[in-house]
Amino acid sequence: MPEFFNTVAPADAVAVLKCRLDRRLHSEPIPAVDSLHRVTSALVISTEELPSFARSSMDGYSVRAQDTYGASESLPALLTVVGDVPTGQQSSVSLRIGEAAVAYTGGMLAQGADAVVMIERTLTVDENTIEVTSPVAPGENVVQVSEDVELGDVVLPSAHRIRSQDVGGMLALGITEVEVVRKPRVAIISTGDELVMPDETPKPGQVRDINSYTIAARVTECGAVPVNYDLVPDNFEAQLAVAQRAFDSADVLIFSAGSSLSSRDMTIDVLNRLGEPGALVHGISIKPGKPTIVGIAKGKPLFGLPGNPVSAVVVFDLVVRPIIHLVSGLTESPVWPPVMAILSRDVPSVAGREDHIPVRLHRENGVLCAEPVFGKSNLIFTLVNSDGMMAIPMDDGGRYAGEQVEVRLHGGP
Amino acid sequence: MPEFFNTVAPADAVAVLKCRLDRRLHSEPIPAVDSLHRVTSALVISTEELPSFARSSMDGYSVRAQDTYGASESLPALLTVVGDVPTGQQSSVSLRIGEAAVAYTGGMLAQGADAVVMIERTLTVDENTIEVTSPVAPGENVVQVSEDVELGDVVLPSAHRIRSQDVGGMLALGITEVEVVRKPRVAIISTGDELVMPDETPKPGQVRDINSYTIAARVTECGAVPVNYDLVPDNFEAQLAVAQRAFDSADVLIFSAGSSLSSRDMTIDVLNRLGEPGALVHGISIKPGKPTIVGIAKGKPLFGLPGNPVSAVVVFDLVVRPIIHLVSGLTESPVWPPVMAILSRDVPSVAGREDHIPVRLHRENGVLCAEPVFGKSNLIFTLVNSDGMMAIPMDDGGRYAGEQVEVRLHGGP
Repeated sequence: MPEFFNTVAPADAVAVLKCRLDRRLHSEPIPAVDSLHRVTSALVISTEELPSFARSSMDGYSVRAQDTYGASESLPALLTVVGDVPTGQQSSVSLRIGEAAVAYTGGMLAQGADAVVMIERTLTVDENTIEVTSPVAPGENVVQVSEDVELGDVVLPSAHRIRSQDVGGMLALGITEVEVVRKPRVAIISTGDELVMPDETPKPGQVRDINSYTIAARVTECGAVPVNYDLVPDNFEAQLAVAQRAFDSADVLIFSAGSSLSSRDMTIDVLNRLGEPGALVHGISIKPGKPTIVGIAKGKPLFGLPGNPVSAVVVFDLVVRPIIHLVSGLTESPVWPPVMAILSRDVPSVAGREDHIPVRLHRENGVLCAEPVFGKSNLIFTLVNSDGMMAIPMDDGGRYAGEQVEVRLHGGP
Repeated sequence: MPEFFNTVAPADAVAVLKCRLDRRLHSEPIPAVDSLHRVTSALVISTEELPSFARSSMDGYSVRAQDTYGASESLPALLTVVGDVPTGQQSSVSLRIGEAAVAYTGGMLAQGADAVVMIERTLTVDENTIEVTSPVAPGENVVQVSEDVELGDVVLPSAHRIRSQDVGGMLALGITEVEVVRKPRVAIISTGDELVMPDETPKPGQVRDINSYTIAARVTECGAVPVNYDLVPDNFEAQLAVAQRAFDSADVLIFSAGSSLSSRDMTIDVLNRLGEPGALVHGISIKPGKPTIVGIAKGKPLFGLPGNPVSAVVVFDLVVRPIIHLVSGLTESPVWPPVMAILSRDVPSVAGREDHIPVRLHRENGVLCAEPVFGKSNLIFTLVNSDGMMAIPMDDGGRYAGEQVEVRLHGGP
């Protein structure tokens, strides 16, 4: 298999595509309340001030700060309560020297007031009189106009994945619609004479197609839309026809090919027919996952994933996911922080390739331990029975039991 | 505010509810392909063996291992190729002594074969003859029947959140339907005379309701279904009517109350009318987030969240989210691993309460640094402008610049 002699590192495979991607993103306006996890396609700018009026941040009394100067428990300031400003209403009370008005958290200050005294710092003398037992400075316990956001402020940057508080932030400013990047469509084509649908009973020699569903679920997790196509046999014309149809309507094309050499060769031929430059990377220097094809045509990324379930997932996480993030409008690929764990047994590795090993996490005397799940990469249950993956870098001979290792949990943003 | 004198720690507030929760979960069957992130309500058991036939894990030749014993590059074993077993088909070839059949990755072995020789370890002599240059042991390069899963194996445990590879694992076994816990419905009721809808223009003294949308987005992130109710003014009868309606159809009830004392008192009265025991915790020993109400009625958890946006989110993450996870059928609340970062400036804290401070992350000379975003908890943009939260434990006086701190990224499982 000469095409797999010159393998490249996962990061290089990503770089090869990155510089050739069609970066014209399609955007669409959507309601801000439905925008969680979508990616902004432009700056979001405030057209209002927040808050739009000076608000009390405490329950108590709005006052003229200078009327409280020098006040103490032994020598309190006496103030006359001339009214209150109910929450949600415009103040109809105006303070003169020595006057106060009842203030509620979130409510407007009385006119003429420049501070709020917390109720805990006051004593009620009679119906209309209070004692203030400590002074307040101007602005104390008050949220000033535009203290949260000023007119013209950048509310959200462009290429930003919207979080729950960002939804709140937009709505606070009356921004009920936001321009986001259209979710990329990721076409997934499973090929192989041995495959049958999951609801069929395989005959001897046949197996159910599972990779396309595992990959589709992972595509969903990174915020894109998977589009699964019908199973295609190992027939060049049939595969090319499906690939061309999928390529026209998708933003990313994934071939989940059979595992045999002939099957991979066919994938390369099909991808090369979709446009220039076609297949660019034949083989990635990782284990498992080496027999991977990476290419691009007309600015759309193309992938031929290995047929083994573990390999397909490793390559998806390291190579496909970062590209989907870019096509989604992000400028960087977000990752979950790794978990640190103590390796429970030696894991040998061969220099010159990155090894990725499924591990199971458990606690021993409060210490998080990672137990490698050794299993062939054609067994889906080595993945099902693991909590995450650990990597051994390319120039490394392995890891010893007792060493601290980084574990990437399954799933991810 | 006497009811907030006896505050409890966040973990204790969770514990108070946990032992009183109605743990009868409703389950429903759904298609396995749509089950990503759902929680299993029962064991998933295999009714098949996987693989169901001995498969080659390499391209090469299926052989009788003993025919290769002693083979080397200088003294190869000569074998006669008597046919091939196309991928996806039952073997029609049967091997006798000294015979081999072409094998494809994923394909069936020829009858009588017990191992596969990789193509790289063979040389073609003529159309029907190969040289094998190294020996194989019985079972080498073969995935045996039931090597991945045996009949009766536990495929997925109960109370397990389904991951992408679990979808593949089920489908591999023909399990196309899975019993999962019905997603909990979380009713969110916003109260306060000062609130208007996000698409309205607030009059002086009014503000837009935002907490209920921020919280709804966070509810969605943890896999439950948020149900937002219309805004309710600070009127006991009106609030009780909405609360009772919501309580009947929801699994969890969240009041996002106004921030004033009177508003909180009303929330407590309303929650106490929903059933026994009603409000149990009045105040949590965290900053921000102290004025939180936690209760339960008829086994359904009830929350009165603080009105300040930052407080509401902190309390949601520490108290509400773990409870939603339990109501979702999980036995433990999953959390993202924290990010470790170097604090860029001193952060003082008061012993006796947990402090939660929004931080912004950036890299300085390759080192991840956390810059505290100081801001009042009634400003939503202290959250929008941060990447995560750092906590200072209850018995701690603060953290110094240069110390390593844990940062919980916003969002979460």
